Amino acid sequence: MKKYLLGAGMLAAFGAASAQSSVTLFGVIDTAYTRDGGSIASVSGLSSGNNASSRLGFRGVEDLGGGLKAGFWLEAGLNTDSGAGTTNASLDNVTASAAAGSLQFGRRATVSLLGNWGEIRLGRDFVPSYYNDTFSPFGVTSVGTDVVVQSNLIGQAQQRTSNGIHYFTPATLGGIYGQLHYALGEQPSNATPSATKDNGDYLGLRLGYRAGPAEVALAYGKVDVARTTGVNNDRSVASLAGSYDLGVAKLSGEYSLQKIRNTVGGAFGNGGTALVGTDTEGKSFGVGALVPVGAGAIKAGYSRIQVDNGHGVGTEPKAAKFALGYQHNLSKRTALYTSAARLKNSGGSASGATLTAAAVRVSGISGASTAPNTSSTAYEAGIRHSF
Amino acid sequence: MKKYLLGAGMLAAFGAASAQSSVTLFGVIDTAYTRDGGSIASVSGLSSGNNASSRLGFRGVEDLGGGLKAGFWLEAGLNTDSGAGTTNASLDNVTASAAAGSLQFGRRATVSLLGNWGEIRLGRDFVPSYYNDTFSPFGVTSVGTDVVVQSNLIGQAQQRTSNGIHYFTPATLGGIYGQLHYALGEQPSNATPSATKDNGDYLGLRLGYRAGPAEVALAYGKVDVARTTGVNNDRSVASLAGSYDLGVAKLSGEYSLQKIRNTVGGAFGNGGTALVGTDTEGKSFGVGALVPVGAGAIKAGYSRIQVDNGHGVGTEPKAAKFALGYQHNLSKRTALYTSAARLKNSGGSASGATLTAAAVRVSGISGASTAPNTSSTAYEAGIRHSF
Amino acid sequence: MKKYLLGAGMLAAFGAASAQSSVTLFGVIDTAYTRDGGSIASVSGLSSGNNASSRLGFRGVEDLGGGLKAGFWLEAGLNTDSGAGTTNASLDNVTASAAAGSLQFGRRATVSLLGNWGEIRLGRDFVPSYYNDTFSPFGVTSVGTDVVVQSNLIGQAQQRTSNGIHYFTPATLGGIYGQLHYALGEQPSNATPSATKDNGDYLGLRLGYRAGPAEVALAYGKVDVARTTGVNNDRSVASLAGSYDLGVAKLSGEYSLQKIRNTVGGAFGNGGTALVGTDTEGKSFGVGALVPVGAGAIKAGYSRIQVDNGHGVGTEPKAAKFALGYQHNLSKRTALYTSAARLKNSGGSASGATLTAAAVRVSGISGASTAPNTSSTAYEAGIRHSF
Repeated sequence: MKKYLLGAGMLAAFGAASAQSSVTLFGVIDTAYTRDGGSIASVSGLSSGNNASSRLGFRGVEDLGGGLKAGFWLEAGLNTDSGAGTTNASLDNVTASAAAGSLQFGRRATVSLLGNWGEIRLGRDFVPSYYNDTFSPFGVTSVGTDVVVQSNLIGQAQQRTSNGIHYFTPATLGGIYGQLHYALGEQPSNATPSATKDNGDYLGLRLGYRAGPAEVALAYGKVDVARTTGVNNDRSVASLAGSYDLGVAKLSGEYSLQKIRNTVGGAFGNGGTALVGTDTEGKSFGVGALVPVGAGAIKAGYSRIQVDNGHGVGTEPKAAKFALGYQHNLSKRTALYTSAARLKNSGGSASGATLTAAAVRVSGISGASTAPNTSSTAYEAGIRHSF
Repeated sequence: MKKYLLGAGMLAAFGAASAQSSVTLFGVIDTAYTRDGGSIASVSGLSSGNNASSRLGFRGVEDLGGGLKAGFWLEAGLNTDSGAGTTNASLDNVTASAAAGSLQFGRRATVSLLGNWGEIRLGRDFVPSYYNDTFSPFGVTSVGTDVVVQSNLIGQAQQRTSNGIHYFTPATLGGIYGQLHYALGEQPSNATPSATKDNGDYLGLRLGYRAGPAEVALAYGKVDVARTTGVNNDRSVASLAGSYDLGVAKLSGEYSLQKIRNTVGGAFGNGGTALVGTDTEGKSFGVGALVPVGAGAIKAGYSRIQVDNGHGVGTEPKAAKFALGYQHNLSKRTALYTSAARLKNSGGSASGATLTAAAVRVSGISGASTAPNTSSTAYEAGIRHSF
Repeated sequence: MKKYLLGAGMLAAFGAASAQSSVTLFGVIDTAYTRDGGSIASVSGLSSGNNASSRLGFRGVEDLGGGLKAGFWLEAGLNTDSGAGTTNASLDNVTASAAAGSLQFGRRATVSLLGNWGEIRLGRDFVPSYYNDTFSPFGVTSVGTDVVVQSNLIGQAQQRTSNGIHYFTPATLGGIYGQLHYALGEQPSNATPSATKDNGDYLGLRLGYRAGPAEVALAYGKVDVARTTGVNNDRSVASLAGSYDLGVAKLSGEYSLQKIRNTVGGAFGNGGTALVGTDTEGKSFGVGALVPVGAGAIKAGYSRIQVDNGHGVGTEPKAAKFALGYQHNLSKRTALYTSAARLKNSGGSASGATLTAAAVRVSGISGASTAPNTSSTAYEAGIRHSF
């Protein structure tokens, strides 16, 4: 009854492992007790992926010879508190996936060709501007995550697109790196109204520079979400972010400008100020510090957002957030962590702009809400295990 | 084109396998021909998981040093007759998962810390009382399964909860073992009516003792499913179960007391007697014998259930079931099996209390129904393969 | 932190790998840029599985000794452009699966016993007549795929059934091979109207002969899809296919006869001629050539279909298709490919019979449409990577 697991549909030579060709099973199980406290309602429970998004994936690289490689990557999001999948495998970058709660490779599904000229990647993956949101010590899924990320004004294309054609520069450009991302909305040529023909089309790019302790990157992305004749609901984000490692602490920051042309419907936050004007803008920034302490690290972050809703015609909701956390590494793969965050609303901003946005981000629990111009608070304490 | 499958996102040393740190792919494919015969309608087809629930899973353990370990476990249920997933990844222990038929880790999704003090486990997993249902030689998914299990009066929390915080005692207590399970329903603090604030909250515990050929365990579980103002629809189960191995036969038994406070709606069985009273109680017991014969074993079971619907005000449906089966082990991993069961209804009990309950349990086929106070019969013949 | 991946729930002896017992992870990631051009609407985007259906699977074989083996196979379809699953895990061979877009093992979910007498296989898998569609150099999912396949007149059972009981002859019959496939629709015995009692029941068989460069196979399949009293909507397919390898080119061909008794509703093609008569017949053939060129191969195919809708009472839609392609193999596992196809409709045939049928087959994009009696054109250029 001897058995083994092969990496492909043939006998593999385990003894002659080569780094060039491999198939890897990997994942993250991250479960936390989270309390999300709003002025109207609070909710507590187990949440998933606060420290790092819970996931299960399969990836591989094949050496084709002559410096050429082929690679694939399938990665599904998980709610590790319930076993459900997280749903985000939009087919057209506009419509949400129908299969809520099911397992699907909505985090990433790509095939690549890699050479000394860089990488061409096809399929579903992060947009370039997303990477600028990851400089914060709290990442993009903690209760401590910057409001820069949680504002999520540009919708589906804030994080990923499907149907993407990506180019990444090689790692040999002396610290300079860049990427280009074009994605197709796959609308039929006779779409009605004709403005919707471009729905879901996305263009993004990013350029960065890494040198010693310093890194800085500029990113831009734009997605077409025109839905009605005469109303162009395009959304874009431009972002500058970077970090500097002082040794005793790694400092990071991001400035982000999000624009929505000819806003129709929607709201800033969940139950918050309705966005009704034209050319709404969201300006936000976040700064953070990661201070190594023994086998762990202390994290701190401050972020602000201000929305110019209709260029002076509408309201100007604002939110500011302060977060503090500690992560203790039991090993390279396993960590215990805890964070707390407090968010203050003003200018009419309500729950969504505050920690309900955090709750929305906190996979697995929802229901907290905060009245306009009041504050809310959230805590998390959990364990993150990678494999 | 040499390839291999790594257990994590890095090169692994296959030659130096250590039991302390591992990632394992595992599963069960169990498919049977099943005929479920009721007095109104019968149905036959291929079903899944009659001998052992069909599943696909990934689990792992990491040695953190100093006696501390971290572990994870992801396990999805399968309908191996159709390839669909079995759906049970409720987010709040009240509402069923939306993604019927999709693959999801609804059987188990947990992360653990283990030490010589025991195990702390977070996520979705069995409730303590479930383990008492597994003493029967037919397990919990055969047509021969005890009516104790099939009555399923307490709903979602009869088998598992999401959002669970579990503690398990270590294996070093001289045969004594125990577990504690608290799960959160994750309702918002302003839920309306306010009684629903506790919906899905669960508390369960189990204490057992194992010595030589004998084992006995006591289990209790209670879930809040209050849905309407003034109506407390709490459900609980208390159970005593055990087994004794005589060598020529392993005997087992379970007594279970299920209570529903202030019953509203619902029915005992599918299409059977409506449960309308207050404080409905279901008393059930099952006894079984497993007789090893060569490479296989003969199984026999008898079980009864009596429901006191509204404490003398309503009806008292009853059901009794006799089951006989044989399992032939082709190897440790693979077995052929067959079972037959006959169930007699009385006191107004109808299909659901009988083999339609079995049909509901038999993943992959449904549709058999039986008139009140009549009998029904079911057969199964299948193959179970583990990997 | 040494780790490894075991093929089963126990420590495996990696050094003593034996071909008899194994568990294998495998898959295909195939993503292409596709343009599907109809006379009414065109659509372009990334599609999945044009060269070989994108998939992720787990399979294994266990040596039981004495020439007996047990095996399992779980295979899920993927949309690699979006990460969604492809949905086809029907429970009863009539109703589509509810969980659109979720991952499920709808391509194949089987358990087998294998001996020198052949193989018995239980679960969801291809129907026998499907294999006759695979002789074409374009396979069953390219824009170049024969209209034989794309007509898809017999619905769900054209490709697979759930609840199947299969028998396959052993490989030791001197080039002769055969298979028998019976599948259960699992309808209750009191189904109303009673004609629907047989819904989803399927019977199919295939007999073939392989000798040197030549292969020929005959296949038949019939599925009951009666839906209304007095209307028997049975569907059947009979097919003869084969190939001959000349060395400089491998030639292939298929003739297929599809019948629908007492047609109600439905349409030939998407938006095309409604099928309203009785005993509709679809006659189709396809011929193809695969010409090896260096590390790749040129492919060519021509196919025609003519539908006799109601035996002279209704219309007789026709479609003819010509396809040309080239595949360049970067390795055994990875290939670049491109194909173009032109389809001409006549006799009232419209989009569905043409390249919208191709679009329907092309997983991941849809929306192209063609007016009756006009032509349409499609292109694809992609990468297929197996693991």
